[in-house]
Amino acid sequence: MAELNKVKVALLGSGTVGTGVYKLINRQRKEMPYKVGADLVVEKVLVRDKNKKREGIDSSLLTDQWEDIILDDDIQIVVEVMGGIEPAHTYIKEALQAGKNVVTANKDLIAEYGKELLDTAEENGCDLLFEASVAGGIPILRPLKHCLAGNYLTEVMGIVNGTTNFILTKMAEEGMEFKEALALATELGYAEADPTADIEGYDAGRKMAIMASIAFNSRVTFDDVYTEGITNISSKDIQYAKEMGCAIKLLGVARNTETGIEVRVHPMLIPLDHPLAGVNDAFNAVFVHGDAVDDAMFYGRGAGEMPTASAVMGDIIDVARNIQFHCCGRIHCTCYKNLPIKKITEIESKYFMRMLVEDKPGVLAKIADTLGRNNVSIAQVVQKNKINDLAELVVITDSVLEQNFADALTSIKGMDITKEISTVIRVY
Amino acid sequence: MAELNKVKVALLGSGTVGTGVYKLINRQRKEMPYKVGADLVVEKVLVRDKNKKREGIDSSLLTDQWEDIILDDDIQIVVEVMGGIEPAHTYIKEALQAGKNVVTANKDLIAEYGKELLDTAEENGCDLLFEASVAGGIPILRPLKHCLAGNYLTEVMGIVNGTTNFILTKMAEEGMEFKEALALATELGYAEADPTADIEGYDAGRKMAIMASIAFNSRVTFDDVYTEGITNISSKDIQYAKEMGCAIKLLGVARNTETGIEVRVHPMLIPLDHPLAGVNDAFNAVFVHGDAVDDAMFYGRGAGEMPTASAVMGDIIDVARNIQFHCCGRIHCTCYKNLPIKKITEIESKYFMRMLVEDKPGVLAKIADTLGRNNVSIAQVVQKNKINDLAELVVITDSVLEQNFADALTSIKGMDITKEISTVIRVY
Repeated sequence: MAELNKVKVALLGSGTVGTGVYKLINRQRKEMPYKVGADLVVEKVLVRDKNKKREGIDSSLLTDQWEDIILDDDIQIVVEVMGGIEPAHTYIKEALQAGKNVVTANKDLIAEYGKELLDTAEENGCDLLFEASVAGGIPILRPLKHCLAGNYLTEVMGIVNGTTNFILTKMAEEGMEFKEALALATELGYAEADPTADIEGYDAGRKMAIMASIAFNSRVTFDDVYTEGITNISSKDIQYAKEMGCAIKLLGVARNTETGIEVRVHPMLIPLDHPLAGVNDAFNAVFVHGDAVDDAMFYGRGAGEMPTASAVMGDIIDVARNIQFHCCGRIHCTCYKNLPIKKITEIESKYFMRMLVEDKPGVLAKIADTLGRNNVSIAQVVQKNKINDLAELVVITDSVLEQNFADALTSIKGMDITKEISTVIRVY
Repeated sequence: MAELNKVKVALLGSGTVGTGVYKLINRQRKEMPYKVGADLVVEKVLVRDKNKKREGIDSSLLTDQWEDIILDDDIQIVVEVMGGIEPAHTYIKEALQAGKNVVTANKDLIAEYGKELLDTAEENGCDLLFEASVAGGIPILRPLKHCLAGNYLTEVMGIVNGTTNFILTKMAEEGMEFKEALALATELGYAEADPTADIEGYDAGRKMAIMASIAFNSRVTFDDVYTEGITNISSKDIQYAKEMGCAIKLLGVARNTETGIEVRVHPMLIPLDHPLAGVNDAFNAVFVHGDAVDDAMFYGRGAGEMPTASAVMGDIIDVARNIQFHCCGRIHCTCYKNLPIKKITEIESKYFMRMLVEDKPGVLAKIADTLGRNNVSIAQVVQKNKINDLAELVVITDSVLEQNFADALTSIKGMDITKEISTVIRVY
């Protein structure tokens, strides 16, 4: 074989994902001449403290100077795996402006600055790929941008946060309450020390913003996403759901409707025979509906060192192939539409509402009347348990406008007979 | 916008898939300038009889002369959706030799002549894409070649035939017998007039050959695939499986082991909590295991006019993007290894064996003894039903060499006490 071209890579960050990517590049070294027609080598690794030992990483590659990378014309691919907004944002922008291709796993950044960075990539004829930013190892962005590009996609629904899915699975399977399951998730390393971004749905919201942008060809940023977490869900809700043939999942839902794009993350009851209902533990899955493909689903590990590194590596290989064929920048930003985004109050949903009310005649009639006056029709009422002389009531509504339900809820909360609205969860 | 480049496409065939592709190209017409930076137009449609009316297809595009296409230098993409080996094989080869890119949905052809055609594509700097040849609308080949390219993939398992999955689902859910379920599949259009290729596992075998080749970077042709169909499965087997916490599916299994590649299609008992167990009706799914990504699964519609057209259209868009960036031929044949392929007799499996034996003392001992002498150890025995004074026995073995099990089976068949070996099914 003739002397091979060398494609040189710089890693920004050597945390969990960075270490995984470093390992994979080395593990796949012998395959690269066949897979991309070039050698792929890590040239530099940017770290905060270059004197700190990094297990398995050749210390001669470490640098704490961004200049060592940005000024090195031989580096053609910059892999950003440091996370956070700054300095990642500045580094990526400077790299693209210097004509370097960028692969990133940074969902916070892409959900916020995606347009700016993709525009910069296009201006400079560079690739900016970010498969790992959504759903870890699961191939989803490339399938949306390429394989399903012949569809008008109308729905993307995902379980895209492994921490909360693990918690909900433990609550469903072992009857744990939220706090107990969260403690277990923390102990096992599934939840971070500060779990806010996971349990409040922000992490899932960022991923939904990225997927909705690609699926609907119109920019959606994290600010556009309505988010609601799982902290109010109790094992009792999950039990009720089960009796109704449903599971409760933290779902990201993005829909392209005639009146605009809906994007939201919240807990939801979904029928047990829906493919997403069987996605358990820390697994992720994304369900897609398009006019041609109909239903499709992508399932796998949404986080972790090697699954995330797998997605980063797929992008690196893609860029390296583009470098060999002189076609970097082959895929531009695909957000060429400017569709309106609906407010959560304009969206229709079915609701599951569990509440404690006085246990006396006429109570249900009053509640039904209040719902009715707000144009909220009832699909089902379950009254089973009594708690300290109060009746526990579960009401499932038909599909109604969020604003109408919110108005009804305010009225019901203000009624004498209402002791507590325990939970409100949307229903698929 | 400046005058756009026109990318001209010829369709070979106007059957179900061809019509779907024609519809999609027109439905997506306005999107193409944004998605690929060019107009995409169908220039010619090759048909057998150009005087026959084709609903929805502009009759001025019809031709029955291959020369009209192969000699037209403006046509840059040939989309082969006629099926069968000849003349598809010749046309594709000639198109590639003439420098035209090819998209095909033809699994028979790729499973047989994949190497030759990919080599021809490479020699001529052309694209040859065939996403639609496996699992219809489900994005699977591009994820394997690109997104998961940083993995050593060790396992690909798939439910890749919708007809048989529909039949097995009906047998499981409604207690139908095979013939009844097949008749229903035929009535609903899921099964062809001659269902042999589906029910004997040949169709699935071709798809497994293609996926194994890509996943393991080593050529596997249909001849290498051991196939066994579902005609011997009875609803009774499914009932037994259910009681053991399993479903019976027609599975394609490809494994890359240290001693070689295993590729086979046969019915299999899989645990109900395996993601593939919940794939029902005519849906398909492909489960993949890699050293980095761990487990991943791809789910969707494996056949049908529009889902298959969705996959073809994804390929067409990819080629059109390559044309715009002058990088056709960017992905070569990825089979750069030459791994040995194991014979079915060299493979280890667990077995489920249902039989009718004389109902008297010592019978089980004799069977157990015969199995033991062939190095087949027993994991479980169930004896429940009596049928006309005979005992129905179900034996589950541990993982044993296929050859040993086959030898034991021959001996057991020859024993006086054995009245019938009703079914033998492998167990996951």
